[in-house]
Amino acid sequence: MGTEIKFRIATEQDLDKIVEMLADDLLGSKRERFEQPLPVSYKEAFQAITSDPNNELVVACDGNEVIGVQQITFTPYITHQGGWRATIEGVRTSSSLRGKGVGTELIRWAIHRARERGCHLIQLTTDKEREDALRFYERLGFKASHEGMKMKL
Amino acid sequence: MGTEIKFRIATEQDLDKIVEMLADDLLGSKRERFEQPLPVSYKEAFQAITSDPNNELVVACDGNEVIGVQQITFTPYITHQGGWRATIEGVRTSSSLRGKGVGTELIRWAIHRARERGCHLIQLTTDKEREDALRFYERLGFKASHEGMKMKL
Repeated sequence: MGTEIKFRIATEQDLDKIVEMLADDLLGSKRERFEQPLPVSYKEAFQAITSDPNNELVVACDGNEVIGVQQITFTPYITHQGGWRATIEGVRTSSSLRGKGVGTELIRWAIHRARERGCHLIQLTTDKEREDALRFYERLGFKASHEGMKMKL
Repeated sequence: MGTEIKFRIATEQDLDKIVEMLADDLLGSKRERFEQPLPVSYKEAFQAITSDPNNELVVACDGNEVIGVQQITFTPYITHQGGWRATIEGVRTSSSLRGKGVGTELIRWAIHRARERGCHLIQLTTDKEREDALRFYERLGFKASHEGMKMKL
């Protein structure tokens, strides 16, 4: 890995690598389909994300190589006196680089971007099965103040 | 209360009542400012929400009276094979009507709307201080499978 990780908005050419990273994970392997050609649902989601000014799919790069990904959603709420929030989702780094600080850099970048967009809060949910992830986010300053509740439809 | 609760998208005329409900709550009273005229930040947030096709501010009505509110955000993600999710936030009912099932009707409506929009998942976070809320959402079928992590900026 080079000396500096660069961040940019993902392009459609990055989508294969993004899905590969999402699928290469204990929970992700059960729910993603990394195959060629990529299922069309991924491309449709990519188009929906990139055409929405309140969604940013961000990749971390070492030179030309994509080594990490995250999605940041900016949402205006009435609560907190009409404050905007940033929500992070789908954070993943190349499995060969895990533990090398790429994840930390990704989240720091998201915090910076959330401030730049005027958000008063940044949030995420992490599966209770991912115990390491909980500690990782706590070290970065997040507090597990809420229950993250989900229902499959 | 009449026999049937109706749901509709909020208009700017509902904003006073919405903020009043949000402020009339243990946690909300610490962070909202219900005063006349309403702080401009609420109106700006209202405009941002209503101009975004992926955000819906919904009120529950008994006749002409607004008795509940919630915001539903629809988000396209790459994860889960490019699935859309619905996120519920800012759920509140008139304090005089709490315990009368308005909250249940609100959430059931959100679930219906999420299905209509093609979401595969509906989610929310609830403050761990709100023990009753956790049980309320569990009864409706949500699972507290995730930690809800937040950081103030």
